[in-house]
Order: sequence, then C-alpha cells, then structure tokens
Amino acid sequence: MFILNNYDTVPLYKQLYRQIREQVLSGKLPAHAKLPSVRDLAAELSTSRNTVEGAYQELYAEGYIYSRQRSGYFVSALDHDVVPQPPSREPRRQARPPQPNLPTYRYNFHPARLDPSSFPAALWRTCFLECLRECSAELSHYGDPQGDWGLRSNIQQYLERSRGVLCEPDQIVICAGLQQGLEILAHLLQDSHSSVAVEDPGYHLPRSVFRNNSFHVVPVAVGPSGMDLEQLRTGDSTIAYVTPSHQLPMGYVMPIANRLNLIDWAQSGGNLIIEDDYDSELRYHGKPIPSLQGLRPDGNIVYMGTFSKILSPALRLSYMVLPRSLLAPFHANYDDYFSTVSLLEQKTMAKFMEQGCWERHVRRMRIIYKRKHDALLQAVEHYFSNKVTVVGQGAGLHVVLQLHEENAGETEILRRAAHKGINLFPFSATCATGGSVSTILLLGFGGMNAAEIEQGIKLLSELCF
Amino acid sequence: MFILNNYDTVPLYKQLYRQIREQVLSGKLPAHAKLPSVRDLAAELSTSRNTVEGAYQELYAEGYIYSRQRSGYFVSALDHDVVPQPPSREPRRQARPPQPNLPTYRYNFHPARLDPSSFPAALWRTCFLECLRECSAELSHYGDPQGDWGLRSNIQQYLERSRGVLCEPDQIVICAGLQQGLEILAHLLQDSHSSVAVEDPGYHLPRSVFRNNSFHVVPVAVGPSGMDLEQLRTGDSTIAYVTPSHQLPMGYVMPIANRLNLIDWAQSGGNLIIEDDYDSELRYHGKPIPSLQGLRPDGNIVYMGTFSKILSPALRLSYMVLPRSLLAPFHANYDDYFSTVSLLEQKTMAKFMEQGCWERHVRRMRIIYKRKHDALLQAVEHYFSNKVTVVGQGAGLHVVLQLHEENAGETEILRRAAHKGINLFPFSATCATGGSVSTILLLGFGGMNAAEIEQGIKLLSELCF
Repeated sequence: MFILNNYDTVPLYKQLYRQIREQVLSGKLPAHAKLPSVRDLAAELSTSRNTVEGAYQELYAEGYIYSRQRSGYFVSALDHDVVPQPPSREPRRQARPPQPNLPTYRYNFHPARLDPSSFPAALWRTCFLECLRECSAELSHYGDPQGDWGLRSNIQQYLERSRGVLCEPDQIVICAGLQQGLEILAHLLQDSHSSVAVEDPGYHLPRSVFRNNSFHVVPVAVGPSGMDLEQLRTGDSTIAYVTPSHQLPMGYVMPIANRLNLIDWAQSGGNLIIEDDYDSELRYHGKPIPSLQGLRPDGNIVYMGTFSKILSPALRLSYMVLPRSLLAPFHANYDDYFSTVSLLEQKTMAKFMEQGCWERHVRRMRIIYKRKHDALLQAVEHYFSNKVTVVGQGAGLHVVLQLHEENAGETEILRRAAHKGINLFPFSATCATGGSVSTILLLGFGGMNAAEIEQGIKLLSELCF
Repeated sequence: MFILNNYDTVPLYKQLYRQIREQVLSGKLPAHAKLPSVRDLAAELSTSRNTVEGAYQELYAEGYIYSRQRSGYFVSALDHDVVPQPPSREPRRQARPPQPNLPTYRYNFHPARLDPSSFPAALWRTCFLECLRECSAELSHYGDPQGDWGLRSNIQQYLERSRGVLCEPDQIVICAGLQQGLEILAHLLQDSHSSVAVEDPGYHLPRSVFRNNSFHVVPVAVGPSGMDLEQLRTGDSTIAYVTPSHQLPMGYVMPIANRLNLIDWAQSGGNLIIEDDYDSELRYHGKPIPSLQGLRPDGNIVYMGTFSKILSPALRLSYMVLPRSLLAPFHANYDDYFSTVSLLEQKTMAKFMEQGCWERHVRRMRIIYKRKHDALLQAVEHYFSNKVTVVGQGAGLHVVLQLHEENAGETEILRRAAHKGINLFPFSATCATGGSVSTILLLGFGGMNAAEIEQGIKLLSELCF
C-alpha cells in the first residue's frame, strides 16, 4: 500500500505522510476509513513506530485524519469536488535572472539621481554600529508608531535652525518617503476633504497617491509666483499641495506676498496647505528660502521634508510636521498602526544628526552639487547658446530648459537621446493637463560628474533641433 | 532706521535682513517704497556693502522686495490684512523629555514581545557591513518599488522549502509590515471589492486598515476549524482575511477539509483569500503546518508573511505573495510608488538569508520559545490547575486561557494585574462583536524568561478569581 525508500533524501515519516495525504485527497482512502494502528503499519512497512507516529501526527495536525479515543485514526471527510489538482511538483524552472534594472545610460539626466559616490558610508557605519550596540534589546518589540523620539527631536531642532519651521517633536511623524506620508494624510483628511489642488506642471507622484485615495485632483496653473491663487480660490479644492520654496519642476520661489495670500486662503476658509519642502537645502546662491510653515506655525499647514535628496533616496526616510489640529485625528487613526520605518535606521539617522554629521553633509553636498549645477549651465550656455531659456537655476538637482526655435518635439528628442545613451525624464509627465506649449527639457545633474554633464549636453544640443 | 550689533551671534546681513523684513511685513516700509542703494545704506550703517548686498539678495529671493533695472530695489506690495502675527520668538520651552514609553512591567504578557536578548546582532552587523561596502553607490537612486530582487529570490526559496508556498519572485512584494501590505492590497481591491470578512475573535489591527480604506468589515465567527464557512458563504463579503495555520488569537489550525472549502469559495465565486501566516514557523511539536497557498498556488490567494515575529518587529520587514491575477493591477497602481523599505535593510536581510543565518535563527528561536512555552504551560498547570482550559498551545508566542469558574472578569483582572506589575493584553480587543461569553486571558510569553513566566503566572492565578 505504501512504499518507503531508505535512499531517498526525504525523511521516511515524510514519505509516508505524503503518500497517505495523496490517498486522502484523491479519495483512494475513503472518508471515515480506519487507518492501521501505528504498530501494525510499522510492522507491515518494516519501519520504526516513530516513522508511522510522525506521519500520523502531521496528518492529524493538518486535519487529514481524525482520532477517536481508543479506536485509532480515521480518514477525514473531504469534499472531493473541491480538491485542486495537486500542485505540479516538477523541478522548478531555473530561478530567473534578476529583472533588468533600468537600462544603464551613459548620461543620466533623471532628476532623482544623487551623486553616486557621496553617501557618507563611513560615518553612517559608525553611527549604525553604535546604535546596534545600544538598542539591540529594543529590537524585540514594536517602536513608537509616530517614530523614534530622539530622531523627532533632532529633526525639530534642525528644521527650526535651518528651515525656519517652528514645531514641537510631538507634531513630527517619521515616514518612509513622501508618498507614505501622503497616504497617512489622505486617510486623515478623507472624511472632511475630497478635492486637492496640485501644481501644473508639478510633481506627478503625489497625484497618484491622492487619486488612489479617491480624492479629486485639480491641476492649478503655476507661474513664476507659484500656484495661481485666483484659480485656486475659484475652484472647490480645500487642500493645496505646493512646493513653494523650489517649485517642482520649474524651480520658482513663491514670493512672500503670495505666501501670505495662500496662508490666508487656508486660514479663512478652513483649508489646508501641504508644503512639500523636498530639496530646498540645496540653494547655490544666497541662503535657502525659509519655509512657508514658519510664517504661520499655528496655521493649517502640513510641512513635509525628506532625507532622500541629500542623503539617499534608497534609505526611505522622510518626515512630516502636522498642525496641532491634525494630531488628534492622527492618534485616533494611527495609534493602531506600527511605524513603517526601521528603528535601527531611525536611531542611526538620529545619531548622525546629533553628532553634526547631517549639517556637515548638507554643506558638503551643496558644494558638490553647485559644481555640477554650474557645469551644466556652462555647457548649456556653450552648446545651446541662444536657442534655449534656462529656468529654475540656482537650486536643487535639476534645471529646466525651454527650447526656443523649431525643435524636434519631446517624443522625438527622448527617442534620439535614448539612442545616444542619454536618459531624459519627460517633462510632459509633470503636466497634468495636456502638454506644454513649448518643448521643455528637465535636466537632472545629480548623478553625473562635470565631464559627463558637459558631454551629455553637447550630445543633447546636437539632437534637439 | 536699522541697528546692527557687531557683538550679536547673528550675522550682520541677517540682522539687517530681519529688520527690513519686519518693516515690510508691518507696513512701516510701504509698498513700492524705494530702498536706499547698497552703497548709501552701507555708508549710513558703517558696514560693508557685502552686508547690505547679502540682506537685499535674501529679501529679493523671497519676494519682500523687487528690483527695477538701473533703479534699484523697491518694497513689494503685500496684503497687510493677511500678515500673520510674527511667530513668537520667545526662547523655546525646554525640549520635553522623551514621551514615556509603555510603563515597564515586571511581567509583560503582551503577545507581541520577542526574546529581548535574541536579536542576532553580530551576524546582522556582518551582513550589514558587507552590504554597505557593496551597494553604497546604489544608495544614490531609488530601488525597485516591489523590493530588492535578491531578497525576493531568497524569500521565494525559503517559502517553498519551509512553508510549501509556490510562487516566483516576481509575485513577491517587500513591505514595511502587515499593515502596509494591507494598505497596498486595499488600494488594489477597492474598485472590485467592498466588504471583507475577518475572524472573530481575530487580529484587531487589520480591521483598522480595511476600515480606513472604506471597506465594510464583517466579523465571522471562528471555531476550532477556523472561520465559519457557512457564515462566510451566506454573507456578502468577497474577501476573507484568515490566519489558517495558527489562528490569531485562538491558535486553532484550519483543517484540510475547511481549507479546501475555503479555496473553493474563493475560486468558484471570484473571491479572494488573504492568508496571514504571521508566525507559523514557531510550532513546537511536529512540523509547521504547510500554507494554504500551497494547496492552490494558482488560486485567488494572497499570502502574507513577516520577519517581525522571529527576527524583530522593529525592523519593519515583511512580504506578500500576490496571485498572478493581481500583478497587473499592482504594477498599474504601484510602479509610480517607491518602496517603503530601506534598500540597505533589504540587502542585509537577503544576505542573512543567503548565508543560511535566517533558517538557523528560526531553529534557534523555536528552541528558545519552546522552553518558554513549556514553562508557561507548566506554571499554568501548577497554579491554575483545573480552573482553566488552555487553548492554542504548541505554537507561536502566546497561548489562551479560558477561565472556568466564577472569576473577576477581564476589566478587573487587568486592573489588578497592572497593580501587581503585570501587563496583560485584553482579549476583548480581538473580539469584533461584543465580548466573549467567558473570560479569556491572552498570554504572550516571548519577552520573559522562564522564572519571570512562572512568577507572573503565580501572581496571576492569585488575582483572577
């Protein structure tokens, strides 16, 4: 009835378990049939009682057989109409090779690329090892759902010093990136808000988050003074998602007059501003523009920041500052949630900040990226000369080129560029409504060195027109 | 007009910037008023032109002043009705001490506590340092939104070997915990599903996630055979969230007959099973119960697993296996999202698995927790003897005690326990509908040693009746 093979690598009890399981599933062993006693089956198969006992215990635990006291084991009744084909046990296909990463380009102008050799690995290592030593026992339970208090305190101090954001650590939520922060906000706001105004052109990713959470996403035009406040006022959005200190993608700075009016829109109408301050540490002439939040720290403003642009986008560390009015809804909704950010990484970041490494790193990166930025502008000046207008220079990790005369158009330029080993992020992806009138190139410079930037711009200048 | 103080720590240009800013905001400097030239103001204040130039540049960048070519700088027009009170600059309150953590109990029976000294820090350190060396350049850009391929491959192999889950790495999504995985699922399913059946009693946290995403949450009774399938069939839920291999909290194993019927419910009705296999590696007699997914790998089953119960809940590392039918919706919705899990941590975990550390760690933890589990049962037997029925022993990190005779009731028992330094997680939190008939204690044993367990149980036995 059953065949055990001593030379098989599968343990004997498991061989027996599998054979009985198959017969129960197939109906060959009918419901309520009595199984032989352990002693009898062991004798019949010339094997040990342990083998049979082991198989019976597994079958019993999983419900293939049941027991009656002093009567032994019986086959469970299964509905044989619903037994799936046993999963094919053919040897698995060769594990496929890793999915191809994004094709590697010689010249990568993607705006979300950081300098590949600038991660402060040695300092990070030191901070990490200290944290691992200190907090190993804390790893045995869940951390604070809002994020490590030490990290929040460090962020609070940094934001006040460097970004003019005024808050307390209890307003800060540590997140695993902007999108995850926006997911949290979407949950907090979905009962009282249904429509969010976004900049057009603007960062395309937040739109997906709002849409996935059933918000109506209303594009509002952006000009050199930021979001068009007239259009915002006449619409019915009650949330405005803005990048006032370095508009993404155009690089504009919203001037103080408009900031005050936007704050007034929020305060007088019970509306909410989401200020995404994603990279404004990187300003190459003069000081970073202070945050909008700092103008009205008690206002209806959510401030969002990230370590992705200066430290690493792969670590997934960001934060948001909630206005006091959102703290109660946050706790009501999220005290049941666990943090999405590793405690070890939070503590490492806290130590990195506490020891002054973060601010030194910001200064270092500002110098490195200023050089790249200047190299880009110089190359553009040299190779494009008067065929383009440069917009949004002087900050961040990208600039924008408006092509003047008759040019090949975005699609064709992207195609030609790819052919030459150049990766361009399509500016049109940032446009919520239709395309832009003129062709615009979005040129990230973070990931290349000066020579690559120059060569890339040279090649680009030859294929745009 | 302006006063500069050479002895102030604030740089001179910043002092000047602030004073002009205040006067613009307050209206003391009226709109379109012309500012003195750089040279004149520098002379007037006996300071350098750089100081004035620096202040003017900041004010200009932020839009407090504007320039007209060859005419100099002018004050911008602001709507003074909307200028907020300048944020109070009083010295900040002393940063508050860290929020009190959960009160520290001498005896902590919380079910989500792991052995505090068992985190494999030395091995983790080695793997982490290797990864940091190898992938430092990868930290300059965003990783795969679905998770690191190497980690997914390792998980796939482990799941097949150890849990009978049959899938390919392209079906695996790396998540920052169960809730984040459920958030993703909720987004994928919200268009086609509106009601989800959950176990009652059952894990309370997923319910919040479903509710926050506007799902109707339908509690379905759980018995020793798992979720009541009759009740499930007569309801209108099209998703069933289940813990079939170790029901949370009761510890029941869903027998094969019901597994097949549940799969049939999913297949024949186009419904979906979410199988949460949170801790079934921890089985102390016999082998872990194979997954439900493995019975029908091509079925409508999402399999969810985690590293929280055996490695650390603070690292925030989990995964889910999507059925092929959900891959297209996943990519449509989430290719725009970034992963929420640190690449460094993913790579560290991949290496930890690849080098066999994970499976050795599972075996080690099984031995450690079996000792604690046995100590708990022995203490219960000794101190409670025939006043309780033990349910769901033999697996996981907790067991359940049904109190027999007249007892003090949950609220009173929790109160008395807290008074004695004992933390109990209220069983009633797992009940979706009303309370349970009898008083039930949920006893997690992961965080205590055998002596603490014994002493805690002794104290508990004295205060329950």
